[in-house]
Amino acid sequence: MNSKATPPRPLSGTIRPTDEQARALARDLISDARFASLGVLDNGAPMVTRVAMGTTPSGEPLTLISDISNHTRALKINPVCSLLVGEPGPKGDPLTHPRLTLQCRVKFVPHSDPGYKAHADHYLATHPKAKLYIGFADFSFAIFGVITAYLNGGFGKAYNLGPGDLKQQGAP
Amino acid sequence: MNSKATPPRPLSGTIRPTDEQARALARDLISDARFASLGVLDNGAPMVTRVAMGTTPSGEPLTLISDISNHTRALKINPVCSLLVGEPGPKGDPLTHPRLTLQCRVKFVPHSDPGYKAHADHYLATHPKAKLYIGFADFSFAIFGVITAYLNGGFGKAYNLGPGDLKQQGAP
Repeated sequence: MNSKATPPRPLSGTIRPTDEQARALARDLISDARFASLGVLDNGAPMVTRVAMGTTPSGEPLTLISDISNHTRALKINPVCSLLVGEPGPKGDPLTHPRLTLQCRVKFVPHSDPGYKAHADHYLATHPKAKLYIGFADFSFAIFGVITAYLNGGFGKAYNLGPGDLKQQGAP
Repeated sequence: MNSKATPPRPLSGTIRPTDEQARALARDLISDARFASLGVLDNGAPMVTRVAMGTTPSGEPLTLISDISNHTRALKINPVCSLLVGEPGPKGDPLTHPRLTLQCRVKFVPHSDPGYKAHADHYLATHPKAKLYIGFADFSFAIFGVITAYLNGGFGKAYNLGPGDLKQQGAP
């Protein structure tokens, strides 16, 4: 195969206007996620790791992470990060499966934070096994404040979203 | 729950000495991956997206990506990136599932590259559906030259690996 043989490229990769269906899909990808790929800056280079995923009571993405993990150390130096949620099933082309890229700034909520208990209660309701380690002193919540989002609903179905598009129904 | 109630932290998060079992697991995570989370630098901020995954004939991780995607544009500006491979199954705690973080520098192999055909033949053997788009002029291979790797075999089973640890058996 060489460049002479390349067929014309069909229309694809263009950004579609954001509609209610795209917003609902993006919100579902956040609320359904039990884990995510987290991208942080490690001495200026990207580093992607897996983290548990939950939400705050109002639906913002959140994780419960340990101070001794590489990603937490990196986030304490630079809170700018990215999350990928939306996991392909075992069948079919994984690139046709919808996924959501979030670009965020993280805010830590340690045990000593007045808001900690509300997050812990909400998290344990959806992640009951986390009771084994949620109390360890090195664990804290990290809330992902979304700056911008990019929804890929499958080949050719791309949308740019903002924080307002991701707000869960009924959230303040 | 408050900081007074936190129990002592069991030994965890320490790096284990690299052994043959860890090397084999890391190599399997690369060769079994059909997709990965890719972290790139987007105007200096991390951006994580999903990409297809394959390998070169000698076992290096590789993807087939389009020039019109955000991650490719970012990689053409800065080739430093990270990959996460190793997908949890539908059952169990996703954080006990082994995964591998790679920190890499990407090298593009366009249609016009003398080595292109060998990569295309190898890729199509494992990704037959890619024949639908592999010939499009905006698609090229991106080979991930591994700088360093971090294997998480589940809670408390962490290893730091180098490129030599990831070389497939029999590879040059």
